[in-house]
Amino acid sequence: MKRRAFLKAAAGSAAVAAIVAKPAIAQGLRKWRMVTTWPKNLPGLGTGAQYFADQVTKCSGGRLTVQLFAAGEIVPAFESIDAVKSGTVEMGHGCPYYWKGKAPAAEFVSNFPFGLTAQEYNAWYYYGGGDKLCDELYDQAFGCKYLACGNTGVQHPGWSRKEVKTLDDFRGLKIRMPGLGGEVMKRLGATVVNLPGGEVGPALASGTIDWVEWNNPYGEASMGFHRHAKYYYTPGWHEPGTVLELFINKQQWDGLEPDLKAIVEQCAFSTNVVMLSEFQARSGPVMQQFITQHGVQLRRLTDEQLKKIGEASGEVISEITKADPMSKKVFDSMNKIRGEQKIYSTTTEFDYFHARSLDFKWPA
Amino acid sequence: MKRRAFLKAAAGSAAVAAIVAKPAIAQGLRKWRMVTTWPKNLPGLGTGAQYFADQVTKCSGGRLTVQLFAAGEIVPAFESIDAVKSGTVEMGHGCPYYWKGKAPAAEFVSNFPFGLTAQEYNAWYYYGGGDKLCDELYDQAFGCKYLACGNTGVQHPGWSRKEVKTLDDFRGLKIRMPGLGGEVMKRLGATVVNLPGGEVGPALASGTIDWVEWNNPYGEASMGFHRHAKYYYTPGWHEPGTVLELFINKQQWDGLEPDLKAIVEQCAFSTNVVMLSEFQARSGPVMQQFITQHGVQLRRLTDEQLKKIGEASGEVISEITKADPMSKKVFDSMNKIRGEQKIYSTTTEFDYFHARSLDFKWPA
Repeated sequence: MKRRAFLKAAAGSAAVAAIVAKPAIAQGLRKWRMVTTWPKNLPGLGTGAQYFADQVTKCSGGRLTVQLFAAGEIVPAFESIDAVKSGTVEMGHGCPYYWKGKAPAAEFVSNFPFGLTAQEYNAWYYYGGGDKLCDELYDQAFGCKYLACGNTGVQHPGWSRKEVKTLDDFRGLKIRMPGLGGEVMKRLGATVVNLPGGEVGPALASGTIDWVEWNNPYGEASMGFHRHAKYYYTPGWHEPGTVLELFINKQQWDGLEPDLKAIVEQCAFSTNVVMLSEFQARSGPVMQQFITQHGVQLRRLTDEQLKKIGEASGEVISEITKADPMSKKVFDSMNKIRGEQKIYSTTTEFDYFHARSLDFKWPA
Repeated sequence: MKRRAFLKAAAGSAAVAAIVAKPAIAQGLRKWRMVTTWPKNLPGLGTGAQYFADQVTKCSGGRLTVQLFAAGEIVPAFESIDAVKSGTVEMGHGCPYYWKGKAPAAEFVSNFPFGLTAQEYNAWYYYGGGDKLCDELYDQAFGCKYLACGNTGVQHPGWSRKEVKTLDDFRGLKIRMPGLGGEVMKRLGATVVNLPGGEVGPALASGTIDWVEWNNPYGEASMGFHRHAKYYYTPGWHEPGTVLELFINKQQWDGLEPDLKAIVEQCAFSTNVVMLSEFQARSGPVMQQFITQHGVQLRRLTDEQLKKIGEASGEVISEITKADPMSKKVFDSMNKIRGEQKIYSTTTEFDYFHARSLDFKWPA
């Protein structure tokens, strides 16, 4: 090596040595803590959040390591967004409607009764201005960046110990159904009770409550509701596609390198479809088992019941949107897509499922 | 700087200099060319492929730059997979059924008549062994890695100049419908014609053909079919959720660093939901315009027609799966999920769309 080249290289090497000596963050090695509102590896929700964390760590080659914490490990579930807002942790995974006490519009970000299916929600989020509107709300209300990160699909409205045949049968029925759905049931005369997750199964078993709403067959199987309530109701008017969210401390998000931002986004969007796929894949066989092995009786709410429930849902929504401008803004934006999709979703998904359900010879 | 430290640093710097002197690929800077079977920025398909390419480039911070080439720019559309197999280019984006001439099972990877919706396909792909099975087929048949990368959603079976009221009305009808759907229509007595994309519109306008199948309102609007054919049919029995694919030269894939592999996967999965969302978001309003502004008449195939079409679909599928073991393997795997999802999809999506379509008062 000639002297001149040697000196030049040495000068460069000093810069290299300086970089190596800096702490991890200056090398671009970040470790983010993600609190969640779920128990560790809760089927679908916890496993989906873990999928997201693992994928970000992989895609970034360890430059951004995301470590998942179950509810209660750092903060209780319902303090997650405060922990992210204050910067105690960098990010969280939960469900928007948990934060409605802090910002009523968050309930609509989750979806609303008689609202959008997962596919329609995604149409709104990616191509209907939903992403910007959610960002606006989460920035203002929580100092967070929002990313859609999972969906339960259409839920089932619940398990009942009693058969509900008419509208009158809802009167006095003791129902565990949170959120807007519960508000609607109150207007039909039901007694709506809130219970922590752990008490729901025993309350149904003892008859303290008559009806339990949870989410979908995969999520419900481990709760054992099918052992205590014989009637399983459809359709899921109350939660037609509940969205799961990622909330990221805004300062941390703004300070992220552009490639890491892109990775977090892409992994959130991938998780959005992967989590829904897990619910769909696992719920199908569980649903069959409920019916064929556990003697569960499938019941559909009647059109008369559904129309009344639909009208009450509209009233509950109108009261909230009249009182809170941001709720109105979010609802109006989603309601526009709802109107635009009505014919299309009917001529595609709905008509197709009808066609496939007809009785014709098919390869085994 | 002390002499010893200086020498040590200089030795390190020699290694740095050697790295800088190496060509781009040795620094981990890769430039991949992605051929597509679409015209540049074709609504939904071309724009979706571009989204994928851009996201990989962003997420990798330019370590893996994906440059998109429209059909014909490097190779004609239907030679794309050969160009990837031979290593002329690194990757491609297309639709599996284009390769059925080389491997009949590829047709099933796209989906099949009376098969899975997008959501059910994803359940199969991510949690029903679909990913491994597709990889097996693409490795054996094309020397490629497969990744699901987009979906059209439930398609519409077509535009007709003539109203088709009974099964007999299909006899002699000149139909443009490719793939398994076309095979099925032949068995109902239709005359099935294949035409290149550019000739389809004029052939419908002149009455050379009576019926055109394409994909969905968003994709069809620019083709102008609504100006030549008054009747728009549902439901999309023939293509309930056609999948778009990424095929990557296997050697190139195997040589990719683990973080870049994860990035390509996550961006493909993200595109899987983002592309479907674009079709959904844009098709809703276009569908409304067809009916309210262009006088398009919506028509549903009757249950009698659909049952006969369903039976014929099963026969066509059975003939292929009897002749080709890999087709049987793929179909059996998807058909298992189809069976498992039937009740669940009915009690969720189907029952929900029914509930939402009822006539009740709703906030404007």
